[in-house]
Amino acid sequence: MPESTNFQDIIINLQNFWARRGCLIWQPYYSQVGAGTYNPATFLRVLGPEPWNVAYVEPSIRPDDARYGENPNRLQQHYQYQVILKPDPGNPQEVYLQSLEAIGIDPRRHDIRFVEDNWQSPALGAWGLGWEVWLDGQEITQFTYFQQSGGQVLDPPSVEITYGLERIAMPLQRVRNFRDIRWTESRTYGDVNLQGEQEHSKYYFEIADIERNQELYKIYMAEAESALEKGLVLPAYDQILKCSQTFNVLDTRGAVGVTERQVMFGKMRDLSRRVSEAYIEERKALGFPWLAQTEPLKAEAAPKAFPAAKPSQKTVDFLLEIGTEELPVFDLDAALTQLRERVPALLDDLRLEHGNISVMGTPRRLVVMVEKIASRQEDRTLVVKGPPAARAFDPQGKPTPAAEGFARGKGIPVEKLEVREMEDGSYVTAVIQENGISAAEVLQKALPELIGGIKFEKSIRWNSSNVVFSRPTRWLLALAGGQVIPFEFAGLTADGATRGLRLNTPAQIEVGSTIQYRKVLEAQGIILDPQARREAIEKQVKEVMRKAGGEPVLSDTILDEVTNLVEAPQAFLGKFNPDFLRLPAEVLISVMEKHQRYFTIRKADGSLLPNFVGVRNGDDQFLETVADGNEQVITARFNDADFFIKQDLQHKLEDFLPRLATLTFQVKLGSMLDKSRRIERLVNELAEPLGLEGKEKETALRAAMLCKADLVSKMVVEMTSLQGTMGRFYALNSGEEEAVADAIRDHYRPRFAGDASPSTKAALAISLADRFDSLAGLFGVGLAPSGTKDPYAQRRAAIGLVQALIDWDLDFDINRGLFMAATGLAMLAGDESLIGCRDFIIGRLQSILLEQGYRYDVVAAVLAEQGSSPARATRAVKELTEWVNRKDWQQILPAYARCVRITRDQNVDHTFNPKALEVPAEQDLYNSFEALKASFTTTGSPNNFLSAFKEQIPVINNFFDKVMVMSDDPIQRENRLYLLQQTAGLAAGTADFSKLEGF
Amino acid sequence: MPESTNFQDIIINLQNFWARRGCLIWQPYYSQVGAGTYNPATFLRVLGPEPWNVAYVEPSIRPDDARYGENPNRLQQHYQYQVILKPDPGNPQEVYLQSLEAIGIDPRRHDIRFVEDNWQSPALGAWGLGWEVWLDGQEITQFTYFQQSGGQVLDPPSVEITYGLERIAMPLQRVRNFRDIRWTESRTYGDVNLQGEQEHSKYYFEIADIERNQELYKIYMAEAESALEKGLVLPAYDQILKCSQTFNVLDTRGAVGVTERQVMFGKMRDLSRRVSEAYIEERKALGFPWLAQTEPLKAEAAPKAFPAAKPSQKTVDFLLEIGTEELPVFDLDAALTQLRERVPALLDDLRLEHGNISVMGTPRRLVVMVEKIASRQEDRTLVVKGPPAARAFDPQGKPTPAAEGFARGKGIPVEKLEVREMEDGSYVTAVIQENGISAAEVLQKALPELIGGIKFEKSIRWNSSNVVFSRPTRWLLALAGGQVIPFEFAGLTADGATRGLRLNTPAQIEVGSTIQYRKVLEAQGIILDPQARREAIEKQVKEVMRKAGGEPVLSDTILDEVTNLVEAPQAFLGKFNPDFLRLPAEVLISVMEKHQRYFTIRKADGSLLPNFVGVRNGDDQFLETVADGNEQVITARFNDADFFIKQDLQHKLEDFLPRLATLTFQVKLGSMLDKSRRIERLVNELAEPLGLEGKEKETALRAAMLCKADLVSKMVVEMTSLQGTMGRFYALNSGEEEAVADAIRDHYRPRFAGDASPSTKAALAISLADRFDSLAGLFGVGLAPSGTKDPYAQRRAAIGLVQALIDWDLDFDINRGLFMAATGLAMLAGDESLIGCRDFIIGRLQSILLEQGYRYDVVAAVLAEQGSSPARATRAVKELTEWVNRKDWQQILPAYARCVRITRDQNVDHTFNPKALEVPAEQDLYNSFEALKASFTTTGSPNNFLSAFKEQIPVINNFFDKVMVMSDDPIQRENRLYLLQQTAGLAAGTADFSKLEGF
Repeated sequence: MPESTNFQDIIINLQNFWARRGCLIWQPYYSQVGAGTYNPATFLRVLGPEPWNVAYVEPSIRPDDARYGENPNRLQQHYQYQVILKPDPGNPQEVYLQSLEAIGIDPRRHDIRFVEDNWQSPALGAWGLGWEVWLDGQEITQFTYFQQSGGQVLDPPSVEITYGLERIAMPLQRVRNFRDIRWTESRTYGDVNLQGEQEHSKYYFEIADIERNQELYKIYMAEAESALEKGLVLPAYDQILKCSQTFNVLDTRGAVGVTERQVMFGKMRDLSRRVSEAYIEERKALGFPWLAQTEPLKAEAAPKAFPAAKPSQKTVDFLLEIGTEELPVFDLDAALTQLRERVPALLDDLRLEHGNISVMGTPRRLVVMVEKIASRQEDRTLVVKGPPAARAFDPQGKPTPAAEGFARGKGIPVEKLEVREMEDGSYVTAVIQENGISAAEVLQKALPELIGGIKFEKSIRWNSSNVVFSRPTRWLLALAGGQVIPFEFAGLTADGATRGLRLNTPAQIEVGSTIQYRKVLEAQGIILDPQARREAIEKQVKEVMRKAGGEPVLSDTILDEVTNLVEAPQAFLGKFNPDFLRLPAEVLISVMEKHQRYFTIRKADGSLLPNFVGVRNGDDQFLETVADGNEQVITARFNDADFFIKQDLQHKLEDFLPRLATLTFQVKLGSMLDKSRRIERLVNELAEPLGLEGKEKETALRAAMLCKADLVSKMVVEMTSLQGTMGRFYALNSGEEEAVADAIRDHYRPRFAGDASPSTKAALAISLADRFDSLAGLFGVGLAPSGTKDPYAQRRAAIGLVQALIDWDLDFDINRGLFMAATGLAMLAGDESLIGCRDFIIGRLQSILLEQGYRYDVVAAVLAEQGSSPARATRAVKELTEWVNRKDWQQILPAYARCVRITRDQNVDHTFNPKALEVPAEQDLYNSFEALKASFTTTGSPNNFLSAFKEQIPVINNFFDKVMVMSDDPIQRENRLYLLQQTAGLAAGTADFSKLEGF
Repeated sequence: MPESTNFQDIIINLQNFWARRGCLIWQPYYSQVGAGTYNPATFLRVLGPEPWNVAYVEPSIRPDDARYGENPNRLQQHYQYQVILKPDPGNPQEVYLQSLEAIGIDPRRHDIRFVEDNWQSPALGAWGLGWEVWLDGQEITQFTYFQQSGGQVLDPPSVEITYGLERIAMPLQRVRNFRDIRWTESRTYGDVNLQGEQEHSKYYFEIADIERNQELYKIYMAEAESALEKGLVLPAYDQILKCSQTFNVLDTRGAVGVTERQVMFGKMRDLSRRVSEAYIEERKALGFPWLAQTEPLKAEAAPKAFPAAKPSQKTVDFLLEIGTEELPVFDLDAALTQLRERVPALLDDLRLEHGNISVMGTPRRLVVMVEKIASRQEDRTLVVKGPPAARAFDPQGKPTPAAEGFARGKGIPVEKLEVREMEDGSYVTAVIQENGISAAEVLQKALPELIGGIKFEKSIRWNSSNVVFSRPTRWLLALAGGQVIPFEFAGLTADGATRGLRLNTPAQIEVGSTIQYRKVLEAQGIILDPQARREAIEKQVKEVMRKAGGEPVLSDTILDEVTNLVEAPQAFLGKFNPDFLRLPAEVLISVMEKHQRYFTIRKADGSLLPNFVGVRNGDDQFLETVADGNEQVITARFNDADFFIKQDLQHKLEDFLPRLATLTFQVKLGSMLDKSRRIERLVNELAEPLGLEGKEKETALRAAMLCKADLVSKMVVEMTSLQGTMGRFYALNSGEEEAVADAIRDHYRPRFAGDASPSTKAALAISLADRFDSLAGLFGVGLAPSGTKDPYAQRRAAIGLVQALIDWDLDFDINRGLFMAATGLAMLAGDESLIGCRDFIIGRLQSILLEQGYRYDVVAAVLAEQGSSPARATRAVKELTEWVNRKDWQQILPAYARCVRITRDQNVDHTFNPKALEVPAEQDLYNSFEALKASFTTTGSPNNFLSAFKEQIPVINNFFDKVMVMSDDPIQRENRLYLLQQTAGLAAGTADFSKLEGF
């Protein structure tokens, strides 16, 4: 532990720490940069194959984060400490945790977590995967496996560790505000930097001249170009950095439209790429001189010798643990799902008999346990088919060269070939006796492939093995019957040691068996089984909630997420200043859930408590410290929300509208302002079919005008999920009527499966208008979703549209809505894309109905006839479902089917000649049909149709019994076919019964 | 001593060192700055009364110093380590020296020197006085007492210490080139920074776009203005820094003319001032919060109690040593001179009898020794005059209130008043017996004033005493008869301890007497007496020169300077690569003398040896290290000269001409190109009077055209003293004829008193033309020198002009030259300024003649008549001097004087009427005058005149004896006056004999 935790000593201690670990200590850059990554010591040096380990402070400038010195920890300038390790030393997380100890953080007294957070810079063509490191809920470090920079794939990748020094100093010094951080014994951070925070905030938000900065941007661009033309990498890069900073200033001044942003990013990205390429070329021309200098941060472990596993029993228990750095929430699920599928299949392939298989995992480990696995494969006899017997032997019965070649290939003497009769003739065969191999041996070969075959949405490389995985694998444990299976993967060799919770000692624990393994993990509080973990968390959280005086109700989403974020869950109660309750509840909830994965607590009356439940990783030691840290975090975040909202409240909601013009909806479809105006128009059109009139119509039109305005508010820009919510809040604060405000919020509904639809017609109208406009427009410009690509969330739009119509039970034809929208979009009415769009929407309706449990055939039957009216179709599906479940359905459907089957291949409309009616059964059918037709109003109701049809069944059956439809008399035949066709045709617009099972 | 001297460890060690001493550790600035001073942690924080101690690294960008990575230690980016101590801790030099030890420099193994070097930034309105710190001749640190910043007087002043880290690392690691500095164990400085040096050099010198940078400058200015209008100190300051860097880039691209430079500096200075004022206001508004936090670097010593000196003897020896930080060369001289004058006067004032006085000193101490000073003042009786006796007593003889008041005032009873007769009447007097006070007591009061009364050209304040002195005084030793005189000055109290050579131990040495003091210093090798030191150095240097095979010839200037730079001189021989001898010798000499104060060595044939003699401070220990360090320095400097010359040689000399247009001579008088063209024209005009024709005239005209071209060459811009020298060198390299080249060099001659005049007529013509143009022009625009102000060096121009004419013995009237020049300058011919200018030149001629030892009256007599022709006047002075020294001069002068005296008040020209000549003496005089006139050609030669005149003396004397000049007959009188006036008038144009002594 260091002597002092003063701010400057933290830095000196980090310098010493990383210098001792072989890092070159570098200096902050002489140009304003948003992060240490932009220092050429990172941005350029991560390129190319040469090793590079470096550490430095970087005062980082983020105009957007300026808060006039009023936020406890958000600053226009914050001090980063940046470390680059290239190549990966094999244990960067551990070294990082040691560095925390070196500056005075005892990780055992805190909740330290690696929470998925991936990084990308569109301006620099750079990205990486990694984590935020949380110290008691506070993000103190960004830890990234840097994969690409300047558009170049990084090989080897670099480990990038970026400490946020203020956020480390505050808990370390137990102060609540950046101003109070002790820089030295006698000076605080506020002493030396508060003035800068105040002044630069004012400059960035209010003073910086837009035109002049635009001019600066152009000049820097031009200088970058001319430097680059001469091959001057560093001078060109300096200019790019200046562009980037100028861009940030312009952005903070609100002077960058969406399109402009893309153009500017594009240019910067292009320059970054060219600079990066030039840098690599330069190093290449020098022969990559540092490649010669090896400077490993840590010696590579020598690969273990192969000790063949020799199980002495018939069956053994098998245990595989893949130790990883913290897996992202969804990647953990994905890995478990794949292992659950693939392990049994693999064992079958390997001919290993086995007992029960369990696949479990935590963020740091994927575990497969197989009970009683056969210690060897079964022996087997293989009969391999060779050439046809006729070609295998010559007329003299001597083997031909074909036979000889075959025998040689199979490794048996030609005399041993046997002729066998096969299905398709007579062949020579080789009969091979295969002895089973030991399970250890086959597994040793198979396991790398098993692990390597797990696929993730995004994967990284991290070392020279160039293996890809969700996150680096750091240890492998593989035991069969207590014997290690020393397979290799990604530069690791499996052994018999697991690891406990991070920072618990000893770091590695040898285990001899599955049972022992389970005990070890249990002793550490680790719950391996995700389901059990989920339940444990739920129980703990509910208990805390009850104690705090709230209702024990949890968000499932957060519960799922938290389950995958901890190994050893421990819930704790946190509080915040009740003053913040004056902010919209949705804001508080969003902040707590989205940023911090806290469970929020409501009282019985539905109002929020000024509390939250967090779940740490670890035990209940130092829980006050953990809770306190988390409380500081949420305070800063609420403060920030407060800042945004205060800024936004300086304007009326309507005043935001003009800025919507700077927000592109889609290039060909114009800005959000354009869209907003189209919605308004559409709402007006929809009024009549929706029965919207008078005051309610006024409300709808006003709300339509304002519905997108909050998208340019600072709070929504910061947290998009608050769209609508903020719109409502700002509307009320701007003096809009409550109904208008509600409609603004509700027009986004339903936002997800299970969400409520708009509760007023006004909101409904806007909701429909918004969705019709999006769908018709996007399909119209050729942007239909394809495969898994759905960047404009059209699925959600369509589902919402359908759901709302169903919920309102509103018979509205989506064709009509699409045509209305098309008019506003100046599309041709007959545009084929509209048909595609309609079918897409009907497809979503189908999904909804199927998800509700309706039979596929029932849904298909109804949608075929009336899919374009979701509400009616839904009613019809319900009705038809009742019918198909009736006992007499086996009489009804065949009767109808008889009518259809005989006529459905006839592509002509048959004609009727009443005079030719001769047979009574004919006459009866005719009468019956006329009665049916008369009683049946085509409402699309299966009930209506089937009730009527059911009465006709005896007549129909009699008709078929008595009458030969395909009479030789053409007039008779024509009459009979006509009767059947008409009867069948009565179901048109209701359902296509031919799609039903049993038809 | 530290574990590692790797570059990054040097930095870490400095951080630790200064942090331990209470400095706040700060970070480099996020903007390109030329030095750590520009970081707001210095520039702003030194303002106002609050304490501030800070230390930080500053990667400093100086485009001008870019060398494509080819110079061993000159870099476009170098790393500074900056320390600010405010207020002065009392021992900053000592703490600094400790810091060197902390990074591995054992000061005892090197020659460490504080060499005067003052700092100012015209762009920032900042200046300070201090030193370069030399480590074996290499400047490794700038040490400054910062006096003003942003136009604000700094109160308290700050100590600013700026380390040049590369220059420290190189000797410390014993490497010869920046590229080889070990940054870590495995990476060199070149590894990480060479690419940057190469690329940025190219960018700054060749690529940076001038127009775009000019535009940037304007934008930054405008942003600074608008930030400042809103009172945003730091954002405004950021923009000023950007202006400054952009200015530097433009300057390096050669795109800033002299006038433009002044304008730009002016603007930046103005902004800096306003930012500084705003900063102070801001702190003031906060109530200068840090004033409350005292953080003294060192506790102030408690003032000593006053132990009254009690000498037991009649006389005692007195010793005063004023310990200072290193005094500048001229300040040491000035202080000694003043002390030599003032000490005797002071002792007389104090009525202290004394013996011999010695005043001596070294850069670190001023010493006064007085032998046998009376241990007490003599007693004395004072008679003090009171009111007149008449007013002192009333008619009854009783004392009046006036008498009583007087008696009371003098502290004697009224009865003791005595009435005494004075010169102006009878007065009451008080007779006061004054007992002499001990010398120690009076000196204690007088010494502070003695020291405080020493004046320097530039002084500084350094601590809260606000005393000013050349450099801080750091200790005081005062002994009278072995007793300490504990007087106080500038926060110090005198005691009985001296200090030896820096870094010798013990730091303080108590001495009890003058003898002991002398012994102590002698033991340390310190030579107190400047004259003795000078001789010792001369002897040592000559010996080294001889050993090296050179002629033992020293530059007096350097010798004088070196004498004042060391306390304990030790000469050593240094060498450099003989390759450098291909550079012009003047360049090598200038570099060695100006930058390093080395003695250069010439062989008997006049050529330079590749060696030099340096003089270190200290003994002969580790002399190889010292010599080696010095050799590295000179290598880097020669390398640099080589760089400049190579760059310059890429163009012909003539090609430099257009750029002269960017160099302003004087705003109203145009650019140097304008001036150059005027010189060319004037040379053409001067050809005839100078007898310049044919080939020689061609040479003169060609040389005139090119004579100023080298002023824009890089070498001359770097080292102005090489003007002309480089012009010659570049001319020869451009294929100019040798005569032309010589004339280019020589037109600057004579450059100083005693310098040779041009040796060819061509050079002479240019030399004269240049000076006539300057003088006429500057006087013409009202810029005559006044008092000590002579910014355009017009004194030197006039002296050179006069000297050249004298040396060439060329009868040329300066009036003619001035008129010629005036024509070229489009001045009115009758411009009065020309008269002033002529008189100014004649004034210089007078000085020259007086300095040559001619009698003042003789010079005055001649100059009154023919000052405008210096050559003739000089001849005349010589001749006249011979005449006045003749034995018969007592006859000659009176005879002439008689003629003059009687006529000189007559403002009329008398007329002559030959018919009225009546008296023979009259007739004789007439005849004699006619003869004299006939024999005398008015060449201005006193010889000529006096030889002739001498013959007339008997006639003149006879005339006066016989004739009454002021006859009553007006015609007679007119005739006689005429004769005398004419005779006297013959001397016109030769000398005004009335100015001679004895006239």
